[in-house]
Parts: sequence; C-alpha cells; structure tokens
Amino acid sequence: MRTFFNTQMEVLNSELIKMGSLCEEMIELSIKALQEHQDFYKEILKLETQLDRQERNIQDLCMQILLQQQPVAGDLRKVYSALKIISDMERIGDMALDIAKIIKESPLEYQERLENMASATVEMVHLSIDCFIKQDLSIAHSVTQKDDVVDKLFYQIKQDVIAGLSKNSQESEVFINYLMIAKYFEKIADHSTNIAEWVEYSITGNYVGEEE
Amino acid sequence: MRTFFNTQMEVLNSELIKMGSLCEEMIELSIKALQEHQDFYKEILKLETQLDRQERNIQDLCMQILLQQQPVAGDLRKVYSALKIISDMERIGDMALDIAKIIKESPLEYQERLENMASATVEMVHLSIDCFIKQDLSIAHSVTQKDDVVDKLFYQIKQDVIAGLSKNSQESEVFINYLMIAKYFEKIADHSTNIAEWVEYSITGNYVGEEE
Repeated sequence: MRTFFNTQMEVLNSELIKMGSLCEEMIELSIKALQEHQDFYKEILKLETQLDRQERNIQDLCMQILLQQQPVAGDLRKVYSALKIISDMERIGDMALDIAKIIKESPLEYQERLENMASATVEMVHLSIDCFIKQDLSIAHSVTQKDDVVDKLFYQIKQDVIAGLSKNSQESEVFINYLMIAKYFEKIADHSTNIAEWVEYSITGNYVGEEE
Repeated sequence: MRTFFNTQMEVLNSELIKMGSLCEEMIELSIKALQEHQDFYKEILKLETQLDRQERNIQDLCMQILLQQQPVAGDLRKVYSALKIISDMERIGDMALDIAKIIKESPLEYQERLENMASATVEMVHLSIDCFIKQDLSIAHSVTQKDDVVDKLFYQIKQDVIAGLSKNSQESEVFINYLMIAKYFEKIADHSTNIAEWVEYSITGNYVGEEE
C-alpha cells in the first residue's frame, strides 16, 4: 500500500533531483561564460533565486516529514542527509554565481588547465547528484576519488599564476581573478564530495567525511 | 518537572557551546600564527580533530532527540538549526586550518588591513556564538551587519594585492597567499552570518538568509 509517508518521501526525492539539476545548470552556465567570454551573470542570478526558493521548499518539506511522520532509521537518515545535501547544493550555486560575477567584471582567457579543472569539477557535481538519484555507493566513491584530482589541478594553477605574475605583473588583476575562479572550482568539488558522503551516510549509516 | 527531553536539549545546548569555543580557539590561534609569524599548524590540526568529533557527537545527539522525542515547533526548529550551525562551525574550523597551513608554508607580513579584517571576523565568530548562547536577536542582527564591513575589507585587500603585484612581481607568492588568507577570513565571516541567521530562524521561525 502506498502511504502518505511514501508519497512525501517520493516528493522529497524528486525535489532534491530538481534542485540538483538547477545546480548543474548554474555551474554549466558559468563554464559557458568562461568559454565564450560572455556575461551570463543575470541568467545565473535568476537561477540562484530559484535555487534558494527550492532550498527553502525542501527545508519545509523535511520539517513536515519530521513533524508528521517521525521517521526512523534509514528514513530518518535520508531526511537528515537531505538537509545537509541542500546546503551543499546551495553553496555550489553561490559559487557558480561568484564565478559569473568575476567574468562579468573582467573577462579572462580560458586556459587549458582551468578547462581541465572546470570539467573535472562539473563531472563531480554531476556524479554526486547521480549517486544520490541512484543511491549508488560506487558512484559516491568515484566522486571522493576525483576530489584529489581537482585539488592537484588547483595547486598547479596556483603555481602557474605565481610564475605568470613574476613575468607579467601588469596583468595582475587577470591572474588574480583566474586564481579566484580556480579556488571556486576547488570549493565546488569539496561540496560535491560532501554530497557524496551524505549519500553514503544515508545508505550505510556511516558518516565517512570531513566537510569543508 | 525536569524531563528527559529537557535534559537532552540542555546537553545539546552545552555541546554546541563547547563546539563554538573550539571554533573560536582555532580562529584565534590562526590569527596568533599570523601576528607572531609562528607555525601553529599542528596545534590547530589537533583542535580540528576535536571539532570533527564534536560535530559527530552533536549529529548523533540530534538524531537521538529526533528519534526519541519527536520535538515540535520551536524545539524542532532548535534541533534543525543545531544541525545547520554545526556545519558552519566545522567549516570555520577548516578555514582556520587552511590559514595556518599557508602560514606554515610561507610566512608573511601581517599588515594593518588584514589585521582589521581578522579582528572584524573573529568578532563576528564570537558574536554569532554569543547570540546562540543568549538566544538574542539583536546580537544576531549585529553579526549580519558586520558582514558588509568584512566584504569591503576583502575588496580593499584585493585592490592592494593587485597594486602591490604591479610594483613587485617577484613577491607574487607572498601576495597570493596574503589574498588567500583574506579570502578565508571573508568565508569565515559568511559562515558566522549563517550561524546568526540560523539562530534567528530557531527563535522566530523565519529564515532570513541566503547561505554562502
């Protein structure tokens, strides 16, 4: 029999998937802005308003479920993880907006290293949402592993920027913005890792991660 | 009559206060490292392990309360806010560690602007924990207002760094690290704002903020 509780949990699931898609859309648009030297700030800001509203909706839904259903064990973990996951998604959205803001204020060259970092990061975001949808531990683990790749790429970009600045200090604002964008990608990767760790917790009951 | 539920809520309160103190200790130590050009990385790392453990303990306690007590209205909001607040506290701790790591790897001059930013930030952390302890809305609002000050200081530091790099590009690593530290302070200020907003939510039921 399909209970009201089951229906609420299904709604929670589909609302989380919607929020995940919004998140992916925002980050993909911020990368498109980088690639095409275009100003998508307004579009991303609009999506961010939707993302915030969606976070609020899911919070309210979680509160309703907790209040009306008093879920236990796995179901309680799922609601609990949902509350954590939406914080990370909301932060990913904020950072996509931060990236778009930098590009709006000063366009910069999209170089290979940053391109690699962006695509590794967007893949992490995608996989972290995918592991949630499929409740798949192996996908969750692949997200965690990818985080090391992104961290290394950030370190390399930092070295590039330091070297670049020594040669061409007149372009310092461009270099600084470049580094800031790389830092945002690194943080987005951290939040994707958090999401994957919360999915793991919701499935197994073991919280493996440290958040960042 | 003092119920088991009241006792659990009091324990939650005191454990949150403990976590807040750990947080403050970490950020103060990271500033001391900056001021005295000393390497406190190991000390802060030790505190971070405690902070993570404390986060885990509070998570478990919240789960217990939700499971055993099915709190409603204000009490449910308090448990819910606690779960959000500990994420922000944990992130503040991470960033104190990030700052200490940069200082360990390359010491830098502690200049006035950064000093102002550090003290404004540490005050925000302090006030955000204080508004939680006292459940005081006016303190919560003062945290939110201070965030603008910190944002402005970050912007000024970024301009300083850009100007500094144009004149002295051989010191680029020092400038970059300086900017990174300022960025961490800005993020710590954001997390303090989040804490204050969650306190407001737990008191009033209105969620005012956007997280970052």
